[in-house]
Amino acid sequence: MLLRMSTLLLKTLREEPADAEVPSHRLLLRAGYVRRAAPGAYTWLPLGKLVLDRVSAILRDEMAAAGGQEVAFPALLPREPYDVSNRWTEYGDDIFTLKDRRGGDYLLAPTHEEMFTLLVQDMTSSYRDFPLVLFQIQTKYRDEARPRGGLLRGREFLMKDAYSFSLTDDGLEEAYASMRVAYQRAFSRLGLSHTIVSAMSGAMGGSASEEFLATAEVGEDTFVGCTSCSYAANTEAVVTPAPESPRVTAPALEVHDTPDTPTIASLVDLANARALGGRSDWTAADTLKNVVVTVHTPGRPDEVLVIGVPGDREVDLRRLDAALAPATATLFDDFAARPDLVKGYIGPQGIKARYLADPRVVAGSAWLTGANEPGRHAINVVAGRDFTPEGTIEAADVRAGDPCPACGAGELTMRRGIEIGHIFQLGRRYTDAFKLDVLGVDGKPVRPTMGCYGIGVSRAVAAIAEQHHDERGLLWPDEVAPADVHIVAAGKDGQVAAALELAGELVAAGLRVLVDDRPQVSAGVKFTDAELIGVTRSVVVGRRSAEGYVEFRDRRTGERNDVAVTDIPRVIATSLG
Amino acid sequence: MLLRMSTLLLKTLREEPADAEVPSHRLLLRAGYVRRAAPGAYTWLPLGKLVLDRVSAILRDEMAAAGGQEVAFPALLPREPYDVSNRWTEYGDDIFTLKDRRGGDYLLAPTHEEMFTLLVQDMTSSYRDFPLVLFQIQTKYRDEARPRGGLLRGREFLMKDAYSFSLTDDGLEEAYASMRVAYQRAFSRLGLSHTIVSAMSGAMGGSASEEFLATAEVGEDTFVGCTSCSYAANTEAVVTPAPESPRVTAPALEVHDTPDTPTIASLVDLANARALGGRSDWTAADTLKNVVVTVHTPGRPDEVLVIGVPGDREVDLRRLDAALAPATATLFDDFAARPDLVKGYIGPQGIKARYLADPRVVAGSAWLTGANEPGRHAINVVAGRDFTPEGTIEAADVRAGDPCPACGAGELTMRRGIEIGHIFQLGRRYTDAFKLDVLGVDGKPVRPTMGCYGIGVSRAVAAIAEQHHDERGLLWPDEVAPADVHIVAAGKDGQVAAALELAGELVAAGLRVLVDDRPQVSAGVKFTDAELIGVTRSVVVGRRSAEGYVEFRDRRTGERNDVAVTDIPRVIATSLG
Repeated sequence: MLLRMSTLLLKTLREEPADAEVPSHRLLLRAGYVRRAAPGAYTWLPLGKLVLDRVSAILRDEMAAAGGQEVAFPALLPREPYDVSNRWTEYGDDIFTLKDRRGGDYLLAPTHEEMFTLLVQDMTSSYRDFPLVLFQIQTKYRDEARPRGGLLRGREFLMKDAYSFSLTDDGLEEAYASMRVAYQRAFSRLGLSHTIVSAMSGAMGGSASEEFLATAEVGEDTFVGCTSCSYAANTEAVVTPAPESPRVTAPALEVHDTPDTPTIASLVDLANARALGGRSDWTAADTLKNVVVTVHTPGRPDEVLVIGVPGDREVDLRRLDAALAPATATLFDDFAARPDLVKGYIGPQGIKARYLADPRVVAGSAWLTGANEPGRHAINVVAGRDFTPEGTIEAADVRAGDPCPACGAGELTMRRGIEIGHIFQLGRRYTDAFKLDVLGVDGKPVRPTMGCYGIGVSRAVAAIAEQHHDERGLLWPDEVAPADVHIVAAGKDGQVAAALELAGELVAAGLRVLVDDRPQVSAGVKFTDAELIGVTRSVVVGRRSAEGYVEFRDRRTGERNDVAVTDIPRVIATSLG
Repeated sequence: MLLRMSTLLLKTLREEPADAEVPSHRLLLRAGYVRRAAPGAYTWLPLGKLVLDRVSAILRDEMAAAGGQEVAFPALLPREPYDVSNRWTEYGDDIFTLKDRRGGDYLLAPTHEEMFTLLVQDMTSSYRDFPLVLFQIQTKYRDEARPRGGLLRGREFLMKDAYSFSLTDDGLEEAYASMRVAYQRAFSRLGLSHTIVSAMSGAMGGSASEEFLATAEVGEDTFVGCTSCSYAANTEAVVTPAPESPRVTAPALEVHDTPDTPTIASLVDLANARALGGRSDWTAADTLKNVVVTVHTPGRPDEVLVIGVPGDREVDLRRLDAALAPATATLFDDFAARPDLVKGYIGPQGIKARYLADPRVVAGSAWLTGANEPGRHAINVVAGRDFTPEGTIEAADVRAGDPCPACGAGELTMRRGIEIGHIFQLGRRYTDAFKLDVLGVDGKPVRPTMGCYGIGVSRAVAAIAEQHHDERGLLWPDEVAPADVHIVAAGKDGQVAAALELAGELVAAGLRVLVDDRPQVSAGVKFTDAELIGVTRSVVVGRRSAEGYVEFRDRRTGERNDVAVTDIPRVIATSLG
């Protein structure tokens, strides 16, 4: 493959694009890989399309190696299957929907669980047809409220989605383990440093869901590690270790006047100043903060929910949403309509709304909390005696230094990452919904169980750019680079002809070559563009080319060496490894 | 590449699918290449995806060889650019439109002229950036009123669309000629016999638009050839040769009572019976039939149009639509609202509606036609004397035996085809709409001129299936076949192991191999499936495999030969050519 910059559709930008907030977005725009076409939608330019295709090819290769078979579904689908699974309703505003000319309801599919399940129902009949892994690399749509980060979170994007169908739970474990290895291999080939984190609370089954997070400062996902064990989890999945219940019961509940203490800080100050309950060591952690939210469940009326968390914690709305999914929550603000909820002075005792508490609110724990009257609080409010939550909820924020829920010995550390892959033991949700049964070995029907495995292909390109760049430009890993070598013709005394001759030889040797043969562009501009474009291996055909020497540059190591032009094929082959 | 039928997602159908009306659709369903996912939308199964990818690869290859650069646009696009070109309105019901969560108008793009033009405007600035050919292979959407023929006319389909940008009209001619050659090469590699036909009337510029039609009985497009020259055209593009104007002027117009003659046949009978004008040789061709239609122009009020054609012709609504595009027409039926239009007795003289006539209605020609009164007709109604059409229109049907408009000597013959490609000198419609100017050689702005070049990729798969099948199944041309060879293990005495061993050797030699290693399937079923699937080269590993012999079958020639298994790689290599 030969790409000539004299004809290539490419315009590099010297200036930082105004609306690009993350490095990958800025560099992919500046180096001419993509252009914005619409909010959250990008056009792939020739260099970008090459990188996207390289990434797709690696994924296709690893999926096939893991026994995956490639199919391709339409993106525009009728409503019916998504009604069977209830996802038409659950997705709400997050999907694009439309009507066709006959008034039929359609959606632009955000994922294809329903279609994969229906296809397997159509194409299989017996245990002999299993296990089965199917995948596609296909354009997906989500009506994101806030598309951001260029390719990181778009409204139209390329996904590799795979589904495994197994007859037994053990079979699902095997398929999951095999795809997990395939993902590790694929991300390693893509040059993506990543951490595999639990994406679902242990309560729901340990490794049943894991995310592959590419470590990056601009990542939207916060995840935790442990200082002493191998635990790693998305913050949404962190399980709060519940302390032991106190052995001694607190004295009876007492209500005190606490005027002007609508905040935790003002309450703690007053409690200590007045030595409530004979103590002057009150801290925010002794108080119980009760946060009112409105829960929005698609297809159902909104509901008011009160969440109790220790006063030194905040409610993390992302953790809350994860706990409530598919419902979402927003802060409640219509206190005028609910006089029973006294803003700033809410307590869980006798509360008339649904009440869920942080796992730290164990039976027997005593709290300083609101008395449900303006200007009054209560002490010795004991869980299990003065109030009983309807359950616990993981809504409090997770912080560096929190105890590790896995080993108990270490402390949590916090990092940021980009979700590049998600593997998930889906189970029988969809095979149940569509009543997919096949003939078992014993002649009785068996219902297959599914795993789902997704990689954001366009997002992976951005994640690679986040991890592989410096202040001068991109630094593509070899397997995804748009070319193996970038030849720069630096000079006007036959260097262009010499560069093209060398390019021809390298192409004949099977290399993918980008050659800067632009006649009216200075060597300086060409070097700057080469650094921006990010093919890390370059050959400068300059003054000494007439003597048979060129300069070989490796931007990763910074090395620059004059090399006999006849030696270049060998030098590049060595460098490619 | 090794495909094992024991694990392949494949279920062949013995029965004809109920809703498949054309051979390609029936066979692609029966052989397990596609499944219907929604009206006009198909899922590609593993074998189908392989063929689709082979077709795409050939197109990509030929586009690159012709200097095309690949890009990829989103499918979901905002309304604005399509308002600039007026196509948001012109497309009307034919496109899928939707609103995003903020209420913004979007469409699923049926084609991307606007986006290509905007991209070139963004990425270029000077004559040095031209000429330029860009292409993409991308999913397109059309809300077809009547999706039909499986992949032949769908609502979601894969297109290869290319655009050339040239600075001069000569440059456009060159780009067009180069793409025309690339298309011929591509279709030849795809094994598609085709005819290149004019797709636009000569009046608008000869070769400015040509269609590639794959000859097929099930084709939706009718095209004409000539018995004595090389003329070929879509029926929509056929230009009716106008006869010479008569030298002698007819006598004055006479009105006659012609009761109960609402049809041409009844009128001709009466005219001959009464010897109107002293003649008894009236034929339908002497009468002028006036057909009333309603013209629907997107974004404008409907308009009544009367079309005059010789009474031995019918109005062909497809030709009429082509002549009126982007407007469309339907037969007018509200005669109660227009008492001036006397149904069955309309004449062009004094008509109050817009009136266009067939090119045969030349100045001086005299007609038997309606007198605009119930039960009365007029003779000697002379064009240019008694009435003057506002213009001519190509709306009359074209028939075998009509004179050739190109040579005048031959007669037209009629054939049917599937439109697999369309090339078109678009000119400056879009560069004008978006005011795309670049710096010219002389320092003045130049407006580029465009060509557009499309191939229906998924439709091409169906067209290949139409041209390459027999009563037993598909017969894929080598370059698009899902495998190079189909190995059938016929027997249970080690034949499966032997077949897999041979398959491994052939894969190692670089061949793509499909092996039928299903353990519980009879040889007869395997042979039937192999014929249906349509890899034309097969190797049967049967009884004699223990002696080192297998049978090589070529389904194209029907030959079957026992061959030493060690000789198979050479035999296949020879056969692949």
